[in-house]
Amino acid sequence: MSGSKCRSCGAPAVIDLPRHNAHFCAEHLQELCRRQMAKAIDDHDMLAPHDRVLVAVSGGKDSLAVWDLLLEAGYAADGLYIGLGIGTYSDVSGEHARRFADERGLRLRTIDLRDEYGYDVPTAAGATRRVPCSACGLSKRHLFDRAAREGGYDAVATGHNLDDEAAVLFGNALRWDLEYLARQLPVLPAANGFPRKVKPLVRLTERETAAWCLVRGIDYLVDECPIAAGNRHLGYKEALNAIERRSPGTKAAFYLGFLERMAPLLADGTAAASGALAPCERCGAPTTGAVCAFCRLVETAAAHDPVPVELVVGSKGGRR
Amino acid sequence: MSGSKCRSCGAPAVIDLPRHNAHFCAEHLQELCRRQMAKAIDDHDMLAPHDRVLVAVSGGKDSLAVWDLLLEAGYAADGLYIGLGIGTYSDVSGEHARRFADERGLRLRTIDLRDEYGYDVPTAAGATRRVPCSACGLSKRHLFDRAAREGGYDAVATGHNLDDEAAVLFGNALRWDLEYLARQLPVLPAANGFPRKVKPLVRLTERETAAWCLVRGIDYLVDECPIAAGNRHLGYKEALNAIERRSPGTKAAFYLGFLERMAPLLADGTAAASGALAPCERCGAPTTGAVCAFCRLVETAAAHDPVPVELVVGSKGGRR
Repeated sequence: MSGSKCRSCGAPAVIDLPRHNAHFCAEHLQELCRRQMAKAIDDHDMLAPHDRVLVAVSGGKDSLAVWDLLLEAGYAADGLYIGLGIGTYSDVSGEHARRFADERGLRLRTIDLRDEYGYDVPTAAGATRRVPCSACGLSKRHLFDRAAREGGYDAVATGHNLDDEAAVLFGNALRWDLEYLARQLPVLPAANGFPRKVKPLVRLTERETAAWCLVRGIDYLVDECPIAAGNRHLGYKEALNAIERRSPGTKAAFYLGFLERMAPLLADGTAAASGALAPCERCGAPTTGAVCAFCRLVETAAAHDPVPVELVVGSKGGRR
Repeated sequence: MSGSKCRSCGAPAVIDLPRHNAHFCAEHLQELCRRQMAKAIDDHDMLAPHDRVLVAVSGGKDSLAVWDLLLEAGYAADGLYIGLGIGTYSDVSGEHARRFADERGLRLRTIDLRDEYGYDVPTAAGATRRVPCSACGLSKRHLFDRAAREGGYDAVATGHNLDDEAAVLFGNALRWDLEYLARQLPVLPAANGFPRKVKPLVRLTERETAAWCLVRGIDYLVDECPIAAGNRHLGYKEALNAIERRSPGTKAAFYLGFLERMAPLLADGTAAASGALAPCERCGAPTTGAVCAFCRLVETAAAHDPVPVELVVGSKGGRR
């Protein structure tokens, strides 16, 4: 950045953003992040001013940034951290989440899979013989949904950024999975007992959320999940990054163009495929079967001998 | 291939095809190519048995393979080669096309842009200040269409392979260009004075068309167009190749899944956008204006001092 100046004020820049063809100082980088989140919330009717929000907190840059940005914007936002039992990675991520909350006097609930449900993600992967990311996603979705329901929250917010969403979109487009494509929206309204889900950071890249944390002094866990390393999702990210380097802005055009032009077409084409839902016999969560997928996972995984994380690292993780 | 055996007959293999999870000998590789072309022609109603076909011949592996495969399958197929004036590349590609035709006693018409229209592709690029691939594509489309019309051919066949089509599809999906997506079909029916266009090799990869040429003793031009090198289209190919290496079959699923599930949805959504067409005042080709885009290009490019190919190599080529 030596010598580069902020586009807004001319002060020394801390970051260059090729897709905006500009440099920004710390203050105007924050401005940009606030504006992009406000635009996402507004464009997609994500949140009303007095909504109570439950933030899915992992201790990484995106979840801490979205929590920080929502609080700063005046939303009532509590956090929920889920201990996934992924070795040192989980230990350290939990410390980051707790430190962020403690330093700011925020409310952070913690659920530990091993303590409360008798399994962890590596063991669930071993027990189900499916990709670890599948058991992990199922557990998180179920527990965030339930906590929101039980806590009376209006919405669950996640830190999914533009890079995440573009990579998932790419994966779904590679398969032309029209149902997944139709549901890949930055807001899913509350329905059938499931809480509203919102992704306020879909207009920000991961470089931008990392820069937000940096200039705000937020100490986040830099490491990626060791199990996810090498999964397809990360392969899609790499492919899009290579294209973005040649043509800055391609990724934003891909994701935002999808929302604008393609998603409406898909919504017409694949309406109302959801079957009838009834409460799970064991936990009360809405499900199409008698017992929900989470309770079935708990049953299988809790009966299995613990599997150390090293055994599942390098197995092929999937993601949607 | 040392020690690998053909899946069909157990003979020593000459090629491994990860997406088919198999090796093939020379004879059964040809079988596969014939079968895939026949399936593409059949699935998409590309050609009737007695259709007269004009093959767009560049001297590269794909165009010589499609010509060879069509003749072998019993179609009446003549060739048309267009001299684009891209330095040595064009000289050598023309030699390959002529040698293929001469050795087999085939009819190959040649149109030289410089001789017949007073320009070449590098000069057109310089004169229009647009990407060279744009002037090249416009010239080829126009001249193939006209030659088919004037020669009474039922269809123009091009050698576009699965890798080409997947990369173009990726580019169109990255922009969610719904009109381009809706028209990205392996057959475009004759309409408004334009001949039918067919792409019989869309189910074959470029590795497979190269292998076809190899085992058939077809001497093709291996070099890629020096102007296209580094263009976006090749960037999309590289990105998809990286994903294909991790998950063989992804590319075929991407393109064929599009045709099966997405294309029908788009056809409904974007019907009949074509405006009224009338004959071009100068050449008679169907056009929405008074003078067609090709005649306007000729006017601009032929008036321009010749631009040597070296001057446009490395400029950013686009493609659709």
